[in-house]
Amino acid sequence: MKLYYLKKAEENLPPLLSKKISPVMENTVLTLGDSLTIDLGNHYVGYFSFKLWYVDMYIDAPVTMSVRFCETKRELDDNYSDYKGALCKSWLQEDIINVDFPGRYEMPRRYAARYIKISIINTPQRLSLSEFYFNAVSSAEESALVELDISDNELKTIDKISVNTLKNCMQRVFEDGPKRDRRLWIGDLRLEALTNYYTFQNYKLIKRCLYLFAAADRNAFGFMPGYVYENPIFVSGYWFIEDYNLMYVCSLCDYYDHTKDKDTFYDLYPVAKSIMDSMETILNDLGLVTTRGGSAFVDWCPGLNKTTSLQGIYLYTLEHWLNVLETLDYGDSDIYRQRLINGRNASLKHLYDDKINSFINEADGHQYSVHSTVWMILGGVITGSKAKDALISALSSTDSLKPFSPYMHHYVVEALVKLGEIDAAEQHIRRIWGGMAKLGANTFSEIYVPDDPDFSANGDRKIDSMCHAWSCTPSYFIRKYNLGKEE
Amino acid sequence: MKLYYLKKAEENLPPLLSKKISPVMENTVLTLGDSLTIDLGNHYVGYFSFKLWYVDMYIDAPVTMSVRFCETKRELDDNYSDYKGALCKSWLQEDIINVDFPGRYEMPRRYAARYIKISIINTPQRLSLSEFYFNAVSSAEESALVELDISDNELKTIDKISVNTLKNCMQRVFEDGPKRDRRLWIGDLRLEALTNYYTFQNYKLIKRCLYLFAAADRNAFGFMPGYVYENPIFVSGYWFIEDYNLMYVCSLCDYYDHTKDKDTFYDLYPVAKSIMDSMETILNDLGLVTTRGGSAFVDWCPGLNKTTSLQGIYLYTLEHWLNVLETLDYGDSDIYRQRLINGRNASLKHLYDDKINSFINEADGHQYSVHSTVWMILGGVITGSKAKDALISALSSTDSLKPFSPYMHHYVVEALVKLGEIDAAEQHIRRIWGGMAKLGANTFSEIYVPDDPDFSANGDRKIDSMCHAWSCTPSYFIRKYNLGKEE
Repeated sequence: MKLYYLKKAEENLPPLLSKKISPVMENTVLTLGDSLTIDLGNHYVGYFSFKLWYVDMYIDAPVTMSVRFCETKRELDDNYSDYKGALCKSWLQEDIINVDFPGRYEMPRRYAARYIKISIINTPQRLSLSEFYFNAVSSAEESALVELDISDNELKTIDKISVNTLKNCMQRVFEDGPKRDRRLWIGDLRLEALTNYYTFQNYKLIKRCLYLFAAADRNAFGFMPGYVYENPIFVSGYWFIEDYNLMYVCSLCDYYDHTKDKDTFYDLYPVAKSIMDSMETILNDLGLVTTRGGSAFVDWCPGLNKTTSLQGIYLYTLEHWLNVLETLDYGDSDIYRQRLINGRNASLKHLYDDKINSFINEADGHQYSVHSTVWMILGGVITGSKAKDALISALSSTDSLKPFSPYMHHYVVEALVKLGEIDAAEQHIRRIWGGMAKLGANTFSEIYVPDDPDFSANGDRKIDSMCHAWSCTPSYFIRKYNLGKEE
Repeated sequence: MKLYYLKKAEENLPPLLSKKISPVMENTVLTLGDSLTIDLGNHYVGYFSFKLWYVDMYIDAPVTMSVRFCETKRELDDNYSDYKGALCKSWLQEDIINVDFPGRYEMPRRYAARYIKISIINTPQRLSLSEFYFNAVSSAEESALVELDISDNELKTIDKISVNTLKNCMQRVFEDGPKRDRRLWIGDLRLEALTNYYTFQNYKLIKRCLYLFAAADRNAFGFMPGYVYENPIFVSGYWFIEDYNLMYVCSLCDYYDHTKDKDTFYDLYPVAKSIMDSMETILNDLGLVTTRGGSAFVDWCPGLNKTTSLQGIYLYTLEHWLNVLETLDYGDSDIYRQRLINGRNASLKHLYDDKINSFINEADGHQYSVHSTVWMILGGVITGSKAKDALISALSSTDSLKPFSPYMHHYVVEALVKLGEIDAAEQHIRRIWGGMAKLGANTFSEIYVPDDPDFSANGDRKIDSMCHAWSCTPSYFIRKYNLGKEE
């Protein structure tokens, strides 16, 4: 089957579309020690080139220069030599090049940037730089973008930034971040695909990504890795994340919901079913999901205990899966209906504290978090006014752990929408994504902590991805629920 | 005329021939901080590529590595950060690259190297390097190389190294050195062309270079620059060297001598004649050449005074020019014959000290040098036993300045040959070029001072060119004068 899945993935490889960005800059004369900053006017992903020429005399030696690509302005002056992050330093987007001849110079690597800083390290003579081009690439077709007609300026801006974030992550696959890791992760895929249904509607790319994961190796519990590599060859990832496996099932269900493409659903049904059935094998005696089959992600929030969230994600996925099976009248839906009922009962019994209407429980060491609350609501464990009160308390409490990633904030908004709290959902979008917009973002970042904008989950914010796929979902909510439309 | 000359130069651009060098190396596993040295087995000029692959896990970040190209073994461990030379540091052949994907990686720049050192600066995982290829390029056709049948092993080795030096400098033009400056200089052109007549016999390349200089701008005195640039566009050089102008005339005369190509000679006759006539305008009242028209090179020997040498080079060139004109019965040879007689007389009168049979004179601040002696002999100012005694004294004296460059050593050998001292000429070749061969050279270097092998004319030996065109002439002498043949 692996070869079949890879063949299907290859058939659905979308063409990369390119657009030449020509920043307005005068011909600039530079010499040893000089530097130059180029502002592309927006965040793009692609390839940079320029013309180097001589000024007074022909340049009789190679010109050594560093070229740094920055997603945000402050990266321009970051000191890379004191980098102390957990991820490989090579992700920092700076190259030292030697230009042997005057003429056009095309840098071969792909970068994600709004700003480009060129510093002259060695040159025997003055030189001029001009005709800067950035060849921006994406598999998102701009002409396919569904138009948005809203009058609310803040939401309009948030939508524009979301669409730009998504566009720049849409390449050969849905990348998590075009600066880093440039890789297909399930959690990102799901949110990119959701937003894509309401914006660029590139269904082939979603299909491709679903097939790529189908081709991945499974661990002993039947779970797929949280990510795969596909360029230049397909390689399975090494990290098995249970909630991401569930998000694969959600992604397939979303795909069917939006496309009604039964062939693809039936083709990938065994893959999803196998994940759902593996979940039953890692329940404990109480009927709660464990991380025996791998690990849980949920969010970047430090110190977060994840049992309740994981249980909620399982129930949320079970419900989605069941709905599609029932719609199609396919598969043994009775089994899954029973599992959903059992799972909700076990959650109510062991994870919920009725007296305080909250999910502070033994299983998570009595930790109080927005995450647990959101996922229990999305999993249908509590509903109605109880759910609404529980969520509003968790969000406003000073004692609860809060989401760090826009990935988790997406599910906060989804829970509010589920509870009919559209205004509160909109306010949450304004607070989180609007907060990033106010900081001057052209794309939404991997992490955003309103009280601590320098927080990095990677040990050094220099390595953080400022254009991150999982942060693109305001466009999904704004467009699906007509936020910001005049009444 | 400039466009016409450039068109002729372009018509004679030789194809670059390439040869794939595959050093025998096992697949090598490396991680952070590791390094690897590749020995190509000989000195080559060209393009390097390799295969990078993953070992334990797919490599989930770019791999940063430095790749250093070394002409000799000791460069492998040189510390480039303390470079203090006069020439631009960018000539040091080291690039820092980021490899984004596993697979073949082709480095885009051209290098001159026998050894290649790869050091891993950043990597998240272990990696393997294998399938190293060096695509060696030259416009010298190996199949055209005239075979040499001699039994003397030392001369055979010297010839082989000379031929390799020439081959690696034969590219789009006769380069001075493929590491640095990669440029067409007249002094190098002349010696490369001479050796080429007896080895690869690539006449087109010589013709191309003669036309390139014809297209160069002249200074106020009518002199051409000592070098030109031709890639990607033609640009005249900025340094006007009188002895190099004379060597242009010699090169044209050599070309006619070896090819009998009258069309090209007549085409370039006005260029050479104009140089010869400009020389007459920079004579002083005594009838001696001055450097009013530019400067003199002669040799890298520090502190060398050059009036006598320059005068000798003028006379040497006049004689050669006159010979060709007389052979062709073309041009006003009487004028040049008279100038030669006048110049020799003035030299005898003002530069020669009959009492001590030497060229220690007022004009050069009473400096005693091999250079003056050699050039007065090659200029025909003294001949026979006087010349022989003068040269042997200058070479053996502890008071005389000695040549630093193989360029000047070439003319020492030429003077010995002119005096019939073939054995002494051969011994000089063994001492200088044989000395370099004994140090393990695969190509002959820009500078060689037997008593001070670390001497650099560029302020730091790290920047010196270890494969330098003007050092290739032993093959010319060995082949033309049948050195090393059994009697």
